[in-house]
Parts: sequence; C-alpha cells; structure tokens
Amino acid sequence: MKGKFIGVGVGPGDPELMTVKAVKIIKSVPVICAPRSSPHRPSIALKIIKNILKKRNDKYEVIEPVFPMIENKENLKKYWDHAAEIISEHLSEGKDVAFVTIGDPSLYSTFTYICRRIKKKFQVEMIPGICSFTSCAASACLPLAEKDETLLILPNVNKKIKKIIGYVDTVVVMKTSRHGNLLKKIVEEDPRKKKIISVVNCSMKNEKIVEGFVEDGGYLCTTLIKFLSE
Amino acid sequence: MKGKFIGVGVGPGDPELMTVKAVKIIKSVPVICAPRSSPHRPSIALKIIKNILKKRNDKYEVIEPVFPMIENKENLKKYWDHAAEIISEHLSEGKDVAFVTIGDPSLYSTFTYICRRIKKKFQVEMIPGICSFTSCAASACLPLAEKDETLLILPNVNKKIKKIIGYVDTVVVMKTSRHGNLLKKIVEEDPRKKKIISVVNCSMKNEKIVEGFVEDGGYLCTTLIKFLSE
Repeated sequence: MKGKFIGVGVGPGDPELMTVKAVKIIKSVPVICAPRSSPHRPSIALKIIKNILKKRNDKYEVIEPVFPMIENKENLKKYWDHAAEIISEHLSEGKDVAFVTIGDPSLYSTFTYICRRIKKKFQVEMIPGICSFTSCAASACLPLAEKDETLLILPNVNKKIKKIIGYVDTVVVMKTSRHGNLLKKIVEEDPRKKKIISVVNCSMKNEKIVEGFVEDGGYLCTTLIKFLSE
Repeated sequence: MKGKFIGVGVGPGDPELMTVKAVKIIKSVPVICAPRSSPHRPSIALKIIKNILKKRNDKYEVIEPVFPMIENKENLKKYWDHAAEIISEHLSEGKDVAFVTIGDPSLYSTFTYICRRIKKKFQVEMIPGICSFTSCAASACLPLAEKDETLLILPNVNKKIKKIIGYVDTVVVMKTSRHGNLLKKIVEEDPRKKKIISVVNCSMKNEKIVEGFVEDGGYLCTTLIKFLSE
C-alpha cells in the first residue's frame, strides 16, 4: 500500500482560520512537509500549525524543503525535483504526506509543482484553505463582489494589469508592496471612483489595514481595489 | 451593551470545510440567522451547520429570513430591510447574531446587503469561509493559477464575458448550468488550448465532477476554465 500525498491549505495566518478537515489531517498524518524560502527563515505554514503539532503525542516527522525565491526556472526545477524525491520515498513506504501551504493549495502555491511530479505515481488529494484575499476582505469588512460584479485576481504588480483592469469591477493584487508605486499609477489612471484598501499580514497578530497603497508592507501584502458604480 | 453582527462563511457544503473559528462562533452565539430562497426550501447554510447546533445544550434562536430569487430590486430591498429590522432587534437587546452564509461572506453573499443596513448602528465582523471555486479546484485536483497567471471570477454567464476572457489565464464561472450553452460557445471561440471542468454540488455527498460544461447541474454548479500556455 502506497501513501497518499495531501495538499493542505492552512489559511492566511490565524490558526483558527484552518478548516476542521485540515486540523484533523495535521493531527494524524505521519509526515508533514512544510516549504520554506530559505534555510535561515522558518516556514510560515509550519508556524501556523505549530500548536496542533505540539499537542500530538504520537510519532511524526516534519520535512522542510527549501524553495528559494529565484527567477531561474531550471534551477528551481532542481529544488522541486529534490523535494518530490524525498516525499516519494515516504509515500513508497506507505506513509501519507501532508504538504502544508499558506492560503489555498490551488492558488499560487508551490504545491502545484510538487503535485505535478508526484501524481504520476501516487494518489493526490487537495484540501482547500482560506485564501488571503477573502481573509483580507473580512478583516477590512469590505464586500469584494455582489450581483453581476466580476473579480480579477493578480498575483503581483506588472504592466499587463493596465490592459485588463478597465473590464472588471474589483481587482485583488497580491504582493503589492514590491511595486506599490506602479500599481498606484495604473489604478489612478482609471477614471472610475474606487475604494482601495491594503492589508499587511492579514489575520496575524501584526495585521495592518491601510486605506490606499503600501510601499513597504513586506511579503504578505494584498491590495483590494473596488471600483464603484453610481 | 449592543450585540455584534457576525457574517460567518460556512464553506461550500462539507461541514468539515468550516473553519475552527466559524465552528466556535456557531457553538456559542445566541442568535443564528440563516437565509433561504423560499419558505418551502430549507437553508443550505443551516443544513451545513445542523450537526453543530444539535450538540448545543444551551438556549439559542434560529431565524430564517426569506430572500426570494427575484430580479426586481425594489421588491428585494423590502426583504433586506425586513431581515435587517429583525436582526437589529436582537442586537439592540445585546445579543450577538451570526449570519451564516454558504461559501465566503465577501463574495456574492446576501450578507453584503444586510451588513450595509446594520453597520450604521452596530459593530460588524466577518469570518472568511472556503469559497466554492477553491473547493471545486481541490475536488478536481486542478491548480487554478501559478506564477504570473491571472484569475477571473464571474458570478454567472453573460455576454460581457466575451470581452474579458482573452486577457486572463484562468476563468471561474459560477452558476453555469443556467446558460451552459452560451458559455460553451464563448469559450470555444477562444483559440487557446484549454482544460474545462465543471463541478456540481462541490464537497457535498452528491458532488459530481465533469470534463467540459454541464447543462442541468442545478444551482450549485461551477465551471473552471484553464487556458494552457505552451
């Protein structure tokens, strides 16, 4: 019997925003895989689940592969291949492996790359998680879309945004603090009235909600732009 | 002391896809408000939380306002006003009221209309829920977006889709079974290769996952369209 590979979304940061199903899996799975961006930086996903793990009395293993934030795809592939190999060893031994990922595993998650390598040989399951932008909307108490309104999700700030923004009612832009000024310029060129809110470290203890854009919000900064119709 | 109005997302259907926070609130709040579309049809959100309520030993109240699926906005406003009045009475008596909503309260939820009426006088809080489309992606084991890919969420099928679809990498269309043929036509006109999956009653016992479009999937039918780059 081979093990199952489970992508588990652990939500935006507050451990109480994990689903009952995610908690159940993290409490019982023999191997937990928590990605991190550097050997010197702890995994955010692992931090979210740490109190659940503390309460476990059984034996389990945590593996923490490093996926550095580099642009070179060929180099990245080596890291993904390596992580997939280690995970496959555990699965071959019949152990289920939970890959914990901040937010939701179907949206901009490293899980996608690992999953692609694993699913040729092993059973894969995905557990959805609360995604950053609905959590940001909740923190800001801002409805994202209603009735016929359309919602566009952009993973970062780039010039392509210009072409699409005019066609939609609400835009969510992630990791906005990197190019906040460019985003500001593009959005201000749109003649419609708008409500703009940026949320930094959503649902975490150091959460910050700001009207407008943020220039130095760090990695977990999301901007919600709602165009208002009269 | 006035009560607090809490919009609680209860996720797509599987009670285990509720967050720990949502469960905690539903276990303790004195008044639960569960919307339904007709006096003859039970509330879907109430069905999701019914086993949590069954285990409660204390006194609580459930109110089930009807929000009919009609197009006339003036008539709808009367229903929203009426529900807001009843909720306000409980809040004035110092009781917290949890408004349970399928999916997430910031996305296409009746909570928005009630919230707008309540927040002038009372404190409002939102608890995010797993939204239908990330749950559909998990069920279908389909990553929605990665790297620079953009994601567009459309609440229904209409001709406006044509203008936007060419600019994005992934499109989620909700309630697709109403105009499945129109959607099919629009998507097929796009020259790109694509993967199309429709999910009916996601995460529920009668969940159905179909390649392509669905014509008679009922109310809870979502289609995921992923355009593939070479």
